Amino acid sequence: MMSITLKKIILASKSIDRSEILKRAGISFEIFITNIDEQKFKASFSDAHELVKKLATAKALLAGNNISINESDKIIIAADTVVEIDGEIIGKAQNKKEAFKILKKLIGRTHKLITGIAITETQNPKIVVDSDITYVEFLRLSDEEIRQYIKTCEWEGRAGAYSISDKASLFINKINGSSSNVIGLPMHKLFEILRKEFKVNLFQFMSHSFNHD
Amino acid sequence: MMSITLKKIILASKSIDRSEILKRAGISFEIFITNIDEQKFKASFSDAHELVKKLATAKALLAGNNISINESDKIIIAADTVVEIDGEIIGKAQNKKEAFKILKKLIGRTHKLITGIAITETQNPKIVVDSDITYVEFLRLSDEEIRQYIKTCEWEGRAGAYSISDKASLFINKINGSSSNVIGLPMHKLFEILRKEFKVNLFQFMSHSFNHD
Repeated sequence: MMSITLKKIILASKSIDRSEILKRAGISFEIFITNIDEQKFKASFSDAHELVKKLATAKALLAGNNISINESDKIIIAADTVVEIDGEIIGKAQNKKEAFKILKKLIGRTHKLITGIAITETQNPKIVVDSDITYVEFLRLSDEEIRQYIKTCEWEGRAGAYSISDKASLFINKINGSSSNVIGLPMHKLFEILRKEFKVNLFQFMSHSFNHD
Repeated sequence: MMSITLKKIILASKSIDRSEILKRAGISFEIFITNIDEQKFKASFSDAHELVKKLATAKALLAGNNISINESDKIIIAADTVVEIDGEIIGKAQNKKEAFKILKKLIGRTHKLITGIAITETQNPKIVVDSDITYVEFLRLSDEEIRQYIKTCEWEGRAGAYSISDKASLFINKINGSSSNVIGLPMHKLFEILRKEFKVNLFQFMSHSFNHD
């Protein structure tokens, strides 16, 4: 077997959805959680793309600063996701009441799901930042159905108070854009940026991971 | 706790992806595998929507006939998925060589992913059949990248030789339509047909499942 030395990937995110999509893509990584005051950022940016790009950048840089550069060269990936409807930027619900209010706004309509992604390396000052947008259409639901969905607690910790891969699949009629972006990590952007800007091909990670299974 | 008597759901499919998406939606079900000569059907239909609807219907009816009607009332769900590109209907690859040929045809372009769904009940002659289409766009890949993807064995048993939820997320640029349809079961159609045509609300199953966790 050919031996390839692969760089280590750090996911600077506590999102279980982002971890899961990276794992399912067969990619090994470690998690590094940063604590950014997201509210402060949210107050400063009215454009959703700008906001998620700034937040992803802040997370990536903070993670980079905190990881010892004495360790081997590491790739750092950070992301931030928001929902936008009627010009309003919507993040995570803080409680069930807020989750109901958000979902009530989204049902029977199309909203924008916007993710910012920032990629850097521990031994390289370069940082590449991009954002992706997916249009998501929800079916109409009754108040009782929204309440039943909220009971499942799937709204917790998720922008827009839903999870497309799980119970919300029942009422997501249609999307236009990347589906991994809706989960919180636009995998095709990650793949393309790493390939083009960092000379890293994720298929090598995949094959490597497979050989060791 | 309110006691609701829920009908049992039977998934007439051996697809692990269909099982997974139903499970992740919090719905309890049993699997019943039918053996249909799919090749015979494929030779008889040149229209992809007609083909997947006929195959889903055949699977649902065969499962219905084989499940004892003496048992409690059961809902039977069956589905069939194909890919269509340049008017050609593409099913599952039989080997790595065929998987390579299929993926080579799909890269850098948009194809149609079409799923037929059939729903019936053991104690009800009614059967409701529908189909759903999603447009899926792949990034360009090199032959070497396709070969590395094939090594992961993800092509096996999947229409079009890829799995959107797993490693193929890296090269799926964009979809237009339902994302659960791409996985092989259009959940929004299932939800709407059951609600409208069978007076069954899947949110009740969900809530029920949650209460027992």
